[in-house]
Amino acid sequence: MTTRIVLAAQGTGAVGAGDRGLNYGDGVFETIKIHGAAPVWWDAHWARLVRGSDALGIPRPDAGVAYDAARMACSHRPRGVLKLVLTRGEGGRGYAPPANAEPTLVVSVHDAPARAPDPLIVRWCDMRLAIQPRLAGHKHLNRLEQVLARGEWQDDSAFEGLMLDMDGRVVCATAANLFVRHDGRWTTPRVSRCGVAGVMRAWCMQALAAGEADLLPADVEAAETLFLCNAVRGILPVHRLGTRRWPADADVVALRRRLAAFEPAFA
Amino acid sequence: MTTRIVLAAQGTGAVGAGDRGLNYGDGVFETIKIHGAAPVWWDAHWARLVRGSDALGIPRPDAGVAYDAARMACSHRPRGVLKLVLTRGEGGRGYAPPANAEPTLVVSVHDAPARAPDPLIVRWCDMRLAIQPRLAGHKHLNRLEQVLARGEWQDDSAFEGLMLDMDGRVVCATAANLFVRHDGRWTTPRVSRCGVAGVMRAWCMQALAAGEADLLPADVEAAETLFLCNAVRGILPVHRLGTRRWPADADVVALRRRLAAFEPAFA
Repeated sequence: MTTRIVLAAQGTGAVGAGDRGLNYGDGVFETIKIHGAAPVWWDAHWARLVRGSDALGIPRPDAGVAYDAARMACSHRPRGVLKLVLTRGEGGRGYAPPANAEPTLVVSVHDAPARAPDPLIVRWCDMRLAIQPRLAGHKHLNRLEQVLARGEWQDDSAFEGLMLDMDGRVVCATAANLFVRHDGRWTTPRVSRCGVAGVMRAWCMQALAAGEADLLPADVEAAETLFLCNAVRGILPVHRLGTRRWPADADVVALRRRLAAFEPAFA
Repeated sequence: MTTRIVLAAQGTGAVGAGDRGLNYGDGVFETIKIHGAAPVWWDAHWARLVRGSDALGIPRPDAGVAYDAARMACSHRPRGVLKLVLTRGEGGRGYAPPANAEPTLVVSVHDAPARAPDPLIVRWCDMRLAIQPRLAGHKHLNRLEQVLARGEWQDDSAFEGLMLDMDGRVVCATAANLFVRHDGRWTTPRVSRCGVAGVMRAWCMQALAAGEADLLPADVEAAETLFLCNAVRGILPVHRLGTRRWPADADVVALRRRLAAFEPAFA
């Protein structure tokens, strides 16, 4: 098996028009913080890409080959975002996955996003997440639900939107996981029916001894405090959701300090 | 608004690594029969692409521009398959759809598929379709469910697989719609929760005065007869599903004759 590796600086690079990533979203991706010209938490990101590509039956290049490509892409970037897209490669027309797929790995670098407002405002999205346990947890390329949810507002009235699943349970923000505290106990929504098992979510779960829970919108609004997190932005305290406001919270401040001490890229 | 048009012969052509079609499946597609070096049922295919891109908020080139590109792509192909992929174009990193998206239209031509066995064998797929009314009916680029379903068998033991939705209702085959007859009356599964509203499905519904119905697997197995259909292969009678067999059916033979008379490309 050979992997076609595409190294793409912002706005450059190309994949074949017959690539299954384009035609079917047949692949997975990772979005990784760059700090000091190196990918942050590479091992955790690669491990998730391994789980996702195994679930889809997509072959991968050796971890070392991918890491070398990632390091090369980051090498002149003090900070920014590294993106990996792994697809099943070229595959003719038709859904049947080729028996001997030769995957494509796109490694691209991007500017760091503008700093998030701190603390920030979130809203509820109308667009819901379909329940699909076979794809849940993985960061696959079928992301129309997130695109439509994030398209519900264009102004600065909110930084992120919270999404419910088709049964009305809260799952996540469009590009971040969610943690809430009730009676001093932290929980985060399950990602076994839909949603993405974030790398930063895993760190926060361990740091907070947080459990997974089924949460309804009213549970979120009744929380003592809440935050969003992802592996590019770290931990983002939420200040307002609709008319509900939360003051700065000592636990969240302490968690951010702990993250910064553990990984200076998030300082 | 400008559309980037990529004309791709089989195995050639490229799209940018930052295209939202690749990164999020943010687009729609059409698969069109080529007959006599021209696209068959262009108007119906374009109308569906319009509905899908409107639902996603993706701008389009003028119909005339797309038609000219399609005609050019087909011009030296007596028969084959024309594929259109319309994406939201390049869009940086992040789910938010750009306010001024410049879409990409990939127009590619492919060999006609090998003739389907006649009559043919189908099977049940384990992979289920998630219920997502906001995307249902449209031929969008988020097709991992179909890829995983079609990957459930690699041999010639079946030509197609029938898929259920998450609630256990029969929806379609991986790349075809389904019609069944009970007590002389034809029905086809609804596509308002998931599934694709096929161009050939629309023709068959009208030709048979068929209604939409909720069908369970037992209803399909109890049918007097059944067929699959799509706009590349036409009407495909089903001979066997598991241990259930059906003989050739006079109604289906007559429907195929009627289709061939209406549109000689399907003769």
